[in-house]
Amino acid sequence: MDVNINIDESIDDLQLNGLMLIQKQSGFRFGVDAVLLSDFANVKKKHRVLDLCTGTGIVPFLLYGKYSPKEVWGVEIQEDMVEMANRSSKLNNTDDIVRFKCADLKDKKLVSELGRFDVITVNPPYKLNNAGILNSNDKLAIARHEILCNLEDVIVSARRLLADNGRMFIVHRPERLADIFGLMRKYNIEPKRVKMIHPSAKKAPNIVLVEGQRDGGAFLKWEEPLYVYNENGNYSEEIDKIYGRL
Amino acid sequence: MDVNINIDESIDDLQLNGLMLIQKQSGFRFGVDAVLLSDFANVKKKHRVLDLCTGTGIVPFLLYGKYSPKEVWGVEIQEDMVEMANRSSKLNNTDDIVRFKCADLKDKKLVSELGRFDVITVNPPYKLNNAGILNSNDKLAIARHEILCNLEDVIVSARRLLADNGRMFIVHRPERLADIFGLMRKYNIEPKRVKMIHPSAKKAPNIVLVEGQRDGGAFLKWEEPLYVYNENGNYSEEIDKIYGRL
Repeated sequence: MDVNINIDESIDDLQLNGLMLIQKQSGFRFGVDAVLLSDFANVKKKHRVLDLCTGTGIVPFLLYGKYSPKEVWGVEIQEDMVEMANRSSKLNNTDDIVRFKCADLKDKKLVSELGRFDVITVNPPYKLNNAGILNSNDKLAIARHEILCNLEDVIVSARRLLADNGRMFIVHRPERLADIFGLMRKYNIEPKRVKMIHPSAKKAPNIVLVEGQRDGGAFLKWEEPLYVYNENGNYSEEIDKIYGRL
Repeated sequence: MDVNINIDESIDDLQLNGLMLIQKQSGFRFGVDAVLLSDFANVKKKHRVLDLCTGTGIVPFLLYGKYSPKEVWGVEIQEDMVEMANRSSKLNNTDDIVRFKCADLKDKKLVSELGRFDVITVNPPYKLNNAGILNSNDKLAIARHEILCNLEDVIVSARRLLADNGRMFIVHRPERLADIFGLMRKYNIEPKRVKMIHPSAKKAPNIVLVEGQRDGGAFLKWEEPLYVYNENGNYSEEIDKIYGRL
């Protein structure tokens, strides 16, 4: 194997067709958001797929392992993350299919460089950048707070990079759902499907998954909710199924 | 008792402080929407309250019985419904507090006639008027389909009739949530709180309750969901509680 692993990195087995992911031991490590997003997305083998704010590349690898699309790109603004994600792809022998590009998603040139996509996924920074005390060099802060891009930037970029009638899939926080719907409609990405994730059946939702279609007609379908824990405090059957499909 | 009841009407006991409601035996009869809406609304004794699309007047009577606000108005476009609702109020000896007015909510004069309100509730027609075959004289169709007013008319009217920072509470269908959020924001009524009602924990939501505030700041709170039936097919504890509070 000719892939270097740095001393502050780990190699994690995704338990999905032998795929591996290099992550910083103390940096942003993938969580349930990425797993839920890749399960929620509808991807076909013929699709070209793009993941925005891709970070370690977890979502592209999960999408590749689950759906075998013909091409997956991940775009990330932090150069060292892109370099690490490309090493993960080399490690997985997927570097002809799963590729990562260092770019600012606000860059209008992206569409001429990468073309347009049938499917776009995104797990964007979900906290408003209003804390003031944040250090903009902090990689965890960049992943979690709207420092380098906000929700509107993400939707504008998706609009630009989606093929005609292409679909975007976003994971976010329910508190932002009015913003998500409003911005999608502002840029003619029609909200088509929503799934709420609750910590348990008795609790308010804390994660939302939204599917939008470029120039889609108005009809919004609500999915059955998903509860992460059951009444005994164990992972629910649905979560076991999603992780079991990894 | 000097209140006439017509032969096609029934008098129903609301099981709430002895309040009664006159309804047509074969017309629109109140259902779970009205009960959920009155439970979801936050009404104080000092409030002036208005219910749009009030129909039989069920929501004004439930709000009066639960919260004892100082004044409740119901506005309804169908004259015979208004006449019936006013007879209900006479029957309840509440006709100095709970009053009904026959008016089109699109009428701009309403605000000079009724003043502005701390709280507005509405259970509007929730089906899009795109069926073509509807008979516009059909009272049930008027109550259920957007024939005489649509969602935008309702939000515009609420904007006009709400006091500064006043709150509106709407019950609708989850399929329309992107429309509700979008129209509220268009008219500067900020969505503040959402509660989803599911037939049961495993099913997608089929009723949504939304609270909006006139010129409110952006923060959207999601409530715990409510399941109408439990896993045994009986009414859930939460529904029993809401009906028990009647």
